[in-house]
Amino acid sequence: MRYSKIFGKTNKSAKEYDSINATYLIRGGFIDQTMAGVYTYLPLGLRVINKLSKIVREEMDKISVEMLMPALSPKSLWETTERYNSVDVLFKASPANETSNTRNNADYVLNPTHEEVITPLAKNFNYSYKDLPFSVYQIQSKFRNEARPKSGLLRGREFIMKDLYSFHKSEKELKEFYLVAKEAYFKVLERVGLRNETYYVAASGGDFTDEFSHEFQVKCETGEDTIFYSTDDEVGYNREVAPALAPEKEEREKPREMEEVLTEGVTGVKDLCEFLKVTPEKTTKTIIYDTDIGPIVACVRGDYEINEEKLRKSAGVKWVKLATEESVKSFTGAEVGYAGIVNLPEGAKLFVDESAKYLTNFETGANKTNYHYKNVNWYKDIPMPEVLYDLKVAKEGDLYPETGKPYSVFKASEVGNIFPLNTKFTKAFNYYFTNEKGQQEIVYTGSYGLGISRLMGILVEKFHDDKGIVWPENVAPFTVHLVGLNLENAEVKTKAETLYQKLVSANVEVLYDDRESVSAGEKFADADLIGLPYRIVVSAKTKDALEFKKRNEPKEKMVAEAELVAFLTKANGQKL
Amino acid sequence: MRYSKIFGKTNKSAKEYDSINATYLIRGGFIDQTMAGVYTYLPLGLRVINKLSKIVREEMDKISVEMLMPALSPKSLWETTERYNSVDVLFKASPANETSNTRNNADYVLNPTHEEVITPLAKNFNYSYKDLPFSVYQIQSKFRNEARPKSGLLRGREFIMKDLYSFHKSEKELKEFYLVAKEAYFKVLERVGLRNETYYVAASGGDFTDEFSHEFQVKCETGEDTIFYSTDDEVGYNREVAPALAPEKEEREKPREMEEVLTEGVTGVKDLCEFLKVTPEKTTKTIIYDTDIGPIVACVRGDYEINEEKLRKSAGVKWVKLATEESVKSFTGAEVGYAGIVNLPEGAKLFVDESAKYLTNFETGANKTNYHYKNVNWYKDIPMPEVLYDLKVAKEGDLYPETGKPYSVFKASEVGNIFPLNTKFTKAFNYYFTNEKGQQEIVYTGSYGLGISRLMGILVEKFHDDKGIVWPENVAPFTVHLVGLNLENAEVKTKAETLYQKLVSANVEVLYDDRESVSAGEKFADADLIGLPYRIVVSAKTKDALEFKKRNEPKEKMVAEAELVAFLTKANGQKL
Repeated sequence: MRYSKIFGKTNKSAKEYDSINATYLIRGGFIDQTMAGVYTYLPLGLRVINKLSKIVREEMDKISVEMLMPALSPKSLWETTERYNSVDVLFKASPANETSNTRNNADYVLNPTHEEVITPLAKNFNYSYKDLPFSVYQIQSKFRNEARPKSGLLRGREFIMKDLYSFHKSEKELKEFYLVAKEAYFKVLERVGLRNETYYVAASGGDFTDEFSHEFQVKCETGEDTIFYSTDDEVGYNREVAPALAPEKEEREKPREMEEVLTEGVTGVKDLCEFLKVTPEKTTKTIIYDTDIGPIVACVRGDYEINEEKLRKSAGVKWVKLATEESVKSFTGAEVGYAGIVNLPEGAKLFVDESAKYLTNFETGANKTNYHYKNVNWYKDIPMPEVLYDLKVAKEGDLYPETGKPYSVFKASEVGNIFPLNTKFTKAFNYYFTNEKGQQEIVYTGSYGLGISRLMGILVEKFHDDKGIVWPENVAPFTVHLVGLNLENAEVKTKAETLYQKLVSANVEVLYDDRESVSAGEKFADADLIGLPYRIVVSAKTKDALEFKKRNEPKEKMVAEAELVAFLTKANGQKL
Repeated sequence: MRYSKIFGKTNKSAKEYDSINATYLIRGGFIDQTMAGVYTYLPLGLRVINKLSKIVREEMDKISVEMLMPALSPKSLWETTERYNSVDVLFKASPANETSNTRNNADYVLNPTHEEVITPLAKNFNYSYKDLPFSVYQIQSKFRNEARPKSGLLRGREFIMKDLYSFHKSEKELKEFYLVAKEAYFKVLERVGLRNETYYVAASGGDFTDEFSHEFQVKCETGEDTIFYSTDDEVGYNREVAPALAPEKEEREKPREMEEVLTEGVTGVKDLCEFLKVTPEKTTKTIIYDTDIGPIVACVRGDYEINEEKLRKSAGVKWVKLATEESVKSFTGAEVGYAGIVNLPEGAKLFVDESAKYLTNFETGANKTNYHYKNVNWYKDIPMPEVLYDLKVAKEGDLYPETGKPYSVFKASEVGNIFPLNTKFTKAFNYYFTNEKGQQEIVYTGSYGLGISRLMGILVEKFHDDKGIVWPENVAPFTVHLVGLNLENAEVKTKAETLYQKLVSANVEVLYDDRESVSAGEKFADADLIGLPYRIVVSAKTKDALEFKKRNEPKEKMVAEAELVAFLTKANGQKL
């Protein structure tokens, strides 16, 4: 394609966005921000999306079959699964104005995912054991009412997604397919150049299941997730679910006398540490939660935060929610900020994180407005709980409980997420199959997401330098950036045009910078920003040979045309 | 693909829908109705969509470049063009529930078309005469809040569309490209087998322009539009804009005396004809309209209806609207139902259709409650207007004014619609370009729609018989329906499997009905319903040869395997 004719040029002075992918993709003329979290794919960007989609399709076609569900669905389906009011990013579609409202006054769901559409549909077709297992997938636009869309293509209000749904006769059959899907994902990641940088980690099952879901996390400094990875046994977790042991931070001291301290207006670990002149590791953080069985008390060492989902599971309750001010007051008898583990009301349900186990002479709230205790000690001042829990948000330095060794901790960006939905949706839609004995059994399902536009963003986050993008060859919008210089020189122009036609005829994907009034410097800067794998320069200087440069290597070299064409057409496996 | 493994089977007992395309596509397992006007494309249906998209892409790529705009856009863009409140099918996206609303309380437009997105975007990139002309297109899902979606894929709330937008330095340049786009459309239609059945006709420019837009109308008994076509000069019109001369219906009579008739409670042409014992051709229909310049009076012969758009243009006003009851009363002095062209208030602006020209002894309202006149005659009782207009909704039998010959009138279904938008959107967004002299000039634009999912529906409306669909080969989801019978017989099964593999290896697209417990009759009925071009049967009966049948021919024949494979792989241009 001729660069002079392409719609959407580079704009190197475009503002810097909150992420490298947004900045480079917008400056490079790949995408345009239509509004926060919503992007237009310009011709260059659409080519990347298409290459990614093709790779995903090829791998998914090996394990599934493609279909296409709509963006709109009836409210009733989402009411059946009780998700209409609970999915916090749900958009609805409704009439925009009075006339539209008069025509048809109704609300529809703008789907963020398609369990509600596929489950009742599958039930209509596949209801015998002979029909199971099966799966279907689609590549389609999804909608999420994100509060603050950010990081370019990484978190959008509208984004392109591959979602696959599988249906099974048993949990065992589901688990088998789950591994098949996992392998298919890794094949995709291999083909786009991310296999070695991707970690398969456990994550929250969300609303769907108390089991873990699994994420494909690409190690990436700018990633929005933190991964806790045990290198020894190749097990990884998203921080949100990482089990963790706290390393002991302070030497154990001889117990001193517990002391009530007036701390009027001093609440929160940071202020208390300053006031008491202790480190956070000498404090505790005690928080009251409302739950479906009434208030409970959670306590971690002061340098940790509480992971509410871990607490929920440890307490064996349906939900936990930070207690309201009134609830705290009526439970502890004190204003918010003075809760502690000493002097709790009788029968209080206390859950203590194991990070507090070795504390000596520590601080805790007095459950009395304006007072804390210091020099508190287990056994002496308060009995050690019979069971200690893992209630904390894992942090760097924490140990993996299975090995007792520190996790490797790194930032990563999620490219896919797969869920064992089990029977959540089939129960809601009464989706049973007839087994070989003629009996009805519930169907098991899984769902498998892979963000196509997100993957494009992650690729830029991973593959770039300070000049621009460095696309892996398989997903680059074109393979060759042919830069024509001195094109006002008829001879040079003919040479460039001839080479362009030759490469196109040989099915090499070429972006030909045929602009006449643009400087060499600007053309090279554009080529670096756009980031195609190979740059070829034709100019008055390049006589019999052509100047050839790989985007990911610093130096150009002169190569004879025939050799170059052979390399690009992979005619003889030649290397350059 | 193995039919046993495909998701979405035939369901021959599915209900009959309001259109053949819905009934056959749903029964055939091509689509599923997720809700009124919103469909899921099952694997078989998606293959048709993909084939159509590929053909459209190939033809559009010759004249334009593909990109992809989002479904969501900010309200502000639609307020800039003053369409947020005026587009009567506009959907908005907004939070579906309280939590979503708390996250982000905002409304976005769910685009039914993309002029509002592409125009400001194009302005950012292409602002010099050197950048123009250019065009871009996309294939993407559109949303319309239809009151009553109907006719299956022909009118949906969500549908797949190819839309192209072109930008030009002048109206002349736009008109040139308009013809280029027209030819590209006809190439698409040729490739899908509709070229000879498609008529290029003038239609309303809608909000966009006072000029005509143009529609590609496929002649089709079940079509929702009526086309008026002048075969002599190959000019066609959608009924909504067809210029028309009324053929003279009644012999001219000697004038009788005008007579006031008491017609208490008798209003409307039908009742008046019965009461007065005359035919509608002896009556007139007089209607008062409110307009931006006050009330006007329109009159057609009683067997016609008034075309408000023709009236608006003839009267040279901005808008016309049926007068309110009060307006009629204050203008004519009579209740609604008694308006006529005699005794109109002085200075009344009267527009008479040419169909009334040769009337003699005709009826008209008396502009007096409960009275009409009969035996009214031009000149004698009322002056003949200096100018007669064409204000009528054209109907069968009407003459094309240019030739004076009757139109050929037929039903048709619109597959595409192209609009000379001129400067409507560029003015709204202040999109000017710098011409060669450094001056600012307004940009001209056109938009060019082609419904991909609609085209799929139209193909079924055109190509079917009482047994099912008869897909043209270019768009059929598979080329061959391989029916295996007696598959419990190992020898037959091996033969069928071997042939299936052989055809797949030869890149023939085969749907292989490998189901074992299904009768021959059912398999044949499924094959007819699904409608692939070629059916091959392998059974215990087919020995050395195979049974071969074209879907559009009544008889099967026995063909040797080698001959069949050669035909299907087009190895030697062989016919069968």
